[in-house]
Amino acid sequence: MQTRVCRLYGQDDLRIETEATPDPVGDEVLVRVGAGGVCGSDMHYYFEGGIGQIRVRQPIILGHEAAGTVVALGPDASGLTVGQKVAINPSHPCGSCSYCQKNLQQHCLNMKFFGSAMPMPHIQGAFRDLVNVRQDQCLAVGDHTDIGAAACAEPLAVCLHAVARAGDLAGKKVLITGAGPIGTLCAAAAKAAGASEIVVTDLQDFALDVARKMGATRTINIAKATDELTPYEQDKGQFDVCLECSAAPAALRTAISTLRPQGILVQVGVAGEMPVPFNPLVAKEITITGTFRFHTEFAQAVAMIDSGAIDVTPIITQTFALETAKEAFDIARDRSKSVKVQLSFAG
Amino acid sequence: MQTRVCRLYGQDDLRIETEATPDPVGDEVLVRVGAGGVCGSDMHYYFEGGIGQIRVRQPIILGHEAAGTVVALGPDASGLTVGQKVAINPSHPCGSCSYCQKNLQQHCLNMKFFGSAMPMPHIQGAFRDLVNVRQDQCLAVGDHTDIGAAACAEPLAVCLHAVARAGDLAGKKVLITGAGPIGTLCAAAAKAAGASEIVVTDLQDFALDVARKMGATRTINIAKATDELTPYEQDKGQFDVCLECSAAPAALRTAISTLRPQGILVQVGVAGEMPVPFNPLVAKEITITGTFRFHTEFAQAVAMIDSGAIDVTPIITQTFALETAKEAFDIARDRSKSVKVQLSFAG
Amino acid sequence: MQTRVCRLYGQDDLRIETEATPDPVGDEVLVRVGAGGVCGSDMHYYFEGGIGQIRVRQPIILGHEAAGTVVALGPDASGLTVGQKVAINPSHPCGSCSYCQKNLQQHCLNMKFFGSAMPMPHIQGAFRDLVNVRQDQCLAVGDHTDIGAAACAEPLAVCLHAVARAGDLAGKKVLITGAGPIGTLCAAAAKAAGASEIVVTDLQDFALDVARKMGATRTINIAKATDELTPYEQDKGQFDVCLECSAAPAALRTAISTLRPQGILVQVGVAGEMPVPFNPLVAKEITITGTFRFHTEFAQAVAMIDSGAIDVTPIITQTFALETAKEAFDIARDRSKSVKVQLSFAG
Amino acid sequence: MQTRVCRLYGQDDLRIETEATPDPVGDEVLVRVGAGGVCGSDMHYYFEGGIGQIRVRQPIILGHEAAGTVVALGPDASGLTVGQKVAINPSHPCGSCSYCQKNLQQHCLNMKFFGSAMPMPHIQGAFRDLVNVRQDQCLAVGDHTDIGAAACAEPLAVCLHAVARAGDLAGKKVLITGAGPIGTLCAAAAKAAGASEIVVTDLQDFALDVARKMGATRTINIAKATDELTPYEQDKGQFDVCLECSAAPAALRTAISTLRPQGILVQVGVAGEMPVPFNPLVAKEITITGTFRFHTEFAQAVAMIDSGAIDVTPIITQTFALETAKEAFDIARDRSKSVKVQLSFAG
Repeated sequence: MQTRVCRLYGQDDLRIETEATPDPVGDEVLVRVGAGGVCGSDMHYYFEGGIGQIRVRQPIILGHEAAGTVVALGPDASGLTVGQKVAINPSHPCGSCSYCQKNLQQHCLNMKFFGSAMPMPHIQGAFRDLVNVRQDQCLAVGDHTDIGAAACAEPLAVCLHAVARAGDLAGKKVLITGAGPIGTLCAAAAKAAGASEIVVTDLQDFALDVARKMGATRTINIAKATDELTPYEQDKGQFDVCLECSAAPAALRTAISTLRPQGILVQVGVAGEMPVPFNPLVAKEITITGTFRFHTEFAQAVAMIDSGAIDVTPIITQTFALETAKEAFDIARDRSKSVKVQLSFAG
Repeated sequence: MQTRVCRLYGQDDLRIETEATPDPVGDEVLVRVGAGGVCGSDMHYYFEGGIGQIRVRQPIILGHEAAGTVVALGPDASGLTVGQKVAINPSHPCGSCSYCQKNLQQHCLNMKFFGSAMPMPHIQGAFRDLVNVRQDQCLAVGDHTDIGAAACAEPLAVCLHAVARAGDLAGKKVLITGAGPIGTLCAAAAKAAGASEIVVTDLQDFALDVARKMGATRTINIAKATDELTPYEQDKGQFDVCLECSAAPAALRTAISTLRPQGILVQVGVAGEMPVPFNPLVAKEITITGTFRFHTEFAQAVAMIDSGAIDVTPIITQTFALETAKEAFDIARDRSKSVKVQLSFAG
Repeated sequence: MQTRVCRLYGQDDLRIETEATPDPVGDEVLVRVGAGGVCGSDMHYYFEGGIGQIRVRQPIILGHEAAGTVVALGPDASGLTVGQKVAINPSHPCGSCSYCQKNLQQHCLNMKFFGSAMPMPHIQGAFRDLVNVRQDQCLAVGDHTDIGAAACAEPLAVCLHAVARAGDLAGKKVLITGAGPIGTLCAAAAKAAGASEIVVTDLQDFALDVARKMGATRTINIAKATDELTPYEQDKGQFDVCLECSAAPAALRTAISTLRPQGILVQVGVAGEMPVPFNPLVAKEITITGTFRFHTEFAQAVAMIDSGAIDVTPIITQTFALETAKEAFDIARDRSKSVKVQLSFAG
Repeated sequence: MQTRVCRLYGQDDLRIETEATPDPVGDEVLVRVGAGGVCGSDMHYYFEGGIGQIRVRQPIILGHEAAGTVVALGPDASGLTVGQKVAINPSHPCGSCSYCQKNLQQHCLNMKFFGSAMPMPHIQGAFRDLVNVRQDQCLAVGDHTDIGAAACAEPLAVCLHAVARAGDLAGKKVLITGAGPIGTLCAAAAKAAGASEIVVTDLQDFALDVARKMGATRTINIAKATDELTPYEQDKGQFDVCLECSAAPAALRTAISTLRPQGILVQVGVAGEMPVPFNPLVAKEITITGTFRFHTEFAQAVAMIDSGAIDVTPIITQTFALETAKEAFDIARDRSKSVKVQLSFAG
């Protein structure tokens, strides 16, 4: 069968090409992709040719947030049936390296992650009409579940993992700095985890509107209201947890001054080097911790989307047909107009 | 009774004065001090007139690492007897503020901590021949326990708390950056917590010699051996935990590159602003956490010193009589010659 | 001033007596009690003369769930004002025993707990018009807070502690066996902690009606529907947590067969010896843990009642004037008609 | 190639048979077994025809504690070489059931565990000269490592998992009830985890002698010294943790009376129904938790044996040639003469 693919050849060089798809082998299934979300890493690859030290060194099909429908089964794929709607887990840890043996699969030394330029050869992604996927990376969703929503399982898994890194959120006051796709899904994840207050900050009203739909109890446009967070500094700090999704040094400083003693900041947004004020960090015993991808949380994300426990659809602000992928990328980086942009495919 | 006191009037203005001691009231006991350790904060007050934003704004008797012998009892002090050797806990949280109610007493909003210029009026310290102390701040030690060792209960409590912030250390590989009094006591605390490897770095051989006596399994003088830590970067990093006691940006960078995924860095040394490389912190899900003073760990420290579980004496490199306090301070800041300097008193 | 007291002289020998109240001393305040809840231990003392090995060996004023209004201040009581409505924390740990030093105050070796026959002499309780209480055991509530609700702070604190022993409940499926005052407040505490399903079982429809008002998502009268829990045994078990409030061996067995691997059972109800099926406990790595009273949770309970985060009033099914205390005790042990019975006082 | 196998046909019906071994397929490797430990479950199968409700319903090759040398590689087995000494991990979870997805692989719904009569068809074991094993279940050990020691990786993994269930043991006082193979390996695991006191009880001096070699700081023969544990009841209890390896009701009662408040009892030995005294369990907030097999701990056990961190050889009290397997089983159940009995094979 023929499939179109969205292949990046280097910075600003994105091409839609048509080619043959091989039949699924072993326990693979062939999935007709329905929707694929444009992620920050896709944009970095396209607009900048890489992310920091990770460079696009060979042609790569982008995309790791995808869902679709099974159209053919490999000879050993007995767990799924043709016609089944599935969310694709882009993560395939090796299972036997030292980190996999410790159940730290997200740190696998031989990770194969869809659409990633980290290893050589690059791992090809899911922005294509048809893609072969290992059966155990395809998680079934019900027919009632919107395919675009199913394609949000991956970023939601990222956020569930980030929230898990913060410990128990029940009854806690949570600050989320940054209201992009990750910040707004973090708001939903924090709400589902029982947070009693969820304050979301951003520079864009458009994004903050989405944050409110996703569970923010209060939003603050810090471009306009610079001192609205000051009262949260009282008695050494009022927030229990900050999910830092902006990668902005100013947000980090604000978080440290408004977190209570033994408060936790989860750094979700990927930044380069940022200055950290260690005096208050030490005196208040604040914890800063990184969060990277997910493992057990993918199945959890699929279950929450499928059951309706979390409605992810408010974050999907635009959907573009594959042939207009460049337009999709352009709008995706305009934070005044978009949160999550998805591509739709032939299926 | 008359007592000498070691009172700081401002930067470089330290005076030994003699005055009357009031009788102990309520549940206070009068303690004849035997030994008092010179701490970094005492030195900052003396040489710089303060620590960062905390300034010495009125005369203050220095000293919060002290031990001695009970010589008189207040009318309500029934739990101790005259002649009892005690370690003095300099920390007195209020017991009823919101943090005390949460058992986070080290963050008490009304903390009274010996020899601290943080609140106004300043809290007076223990560098004096005789001092009245609340009975419940005096922990009994056996006659066999060296009074200088007993005066190390406070810095050891700081280190036990720091180690507790790192979680279970059994069988773990620990990096300790900085071999001052805190770094070397951290080595002992990490050893007692079951760490299997304890690598200590410093710029001074003198300090590293003490570190080995306190439990370091390997020491590295990074002034001489700049690349000896490189092998620890293998497979994303080899250390489980770093106790960062140097407050040096280079140490922080080294720690982040040699910590394994989900490794923990406890920032023990108080630094100002330092740049943090967030890319590896996020990708490896590294945790940086502050540690501040102690609460439950003071009694634990006293018990460990008293039982011999930890021998703190190798860190005490010099002892000066009170009248030569200035000399003590001078040697205390010469890291090529001293680790912990103590004062001795009339008792 | 004269006060009536509700004093137990032994099994079935409860007397309302009038006597003088001393003035508050030190940091005590004199509280005019508004409401006092009858607890299981009060009933055991009255109907059986003790609880297991703890016997009433001298006259004791009952009552440890009380709230009222400050009417006089001791000379050192500066933190409260006359007229302030307060919830009384019946718990006064010593602050200096080995357990208090470890922040395990509920296990204090010298605990003074209102209305307890455990130590000799017994600690007198709060079923009286006027009572002197240490100021730091009186937590202020707003005028808007019902005095009966405030008197539920103690049992709610017990339940918050029980829930805390179960770890993070966000999104969890919780089974609560027994819908008495503790079971129904546990339902509210579990709901506040973010539990997604709360199934409550009991033998009485009256109690289950209250459980639904307090947050149960499903109730099962196991006297009628013996196999409604069987589906929860699927795939090794479906519940994440069981709060066992019935002290019934059958409930324990049901819990172990319906808890998932690594599920947690918190034993809240105090039972004697019960048989435990260890084969499934080991094979499923189930945890059984006890929960005893509370410490940090009392302030938390007061705050949740005061802010309206938890509405405790549905559990208060009857209120009796002090002079009809015996009637109150009789109805309190009729589980077909009551959940929590309170006494009201002259105030 | 021909291999002998040790096959059980039912209670007391153990036969040594010779048959052909198929070539390794896929990523299997053919291992020439060097040593195989006789475990309690093997003995239950042989002497009683099953364990509780799990019955031997078809012929089964026993054995799940084995180590050997690779002699042939399947076509896809690229990670090992012929001649490599390996410890065999008997556990093969499916990787995709709901428990595997949650990283609770030991509770896999489709577990294939060597020599287990739990599923139908039974999973065949490793008591045979030659056995095909999935490559990722073979963990390399160095040539210096004794093959009998390597075959102890499985029971050591069980003990490391049990110890992990108890949390941080550094500086803790640990009671181990029962000094069989699991109890004595638990002593070693507790020592490696930093326990400061390890008291082991048993009815047999022979076993207690081994316990001392494995790390016990004190042993008590409770057949002789019935009240030697009484002092540990002081101040509500002195032990932090009990690893209950005897499955004896008396041991359980002793443990609960000597554990301190919030102490943890890990039930390692598999018992049927036992009575539990819930009054002290609740009042002291004691935790009882089950432990079942292992997952991440197998690699850890292999590493500890290979590096010499734990010397397991003192527990191997007898080794019998395969042809005398019945004799091995007879001596294995005589606790006055044996701790761990192993079989040796043609290799």
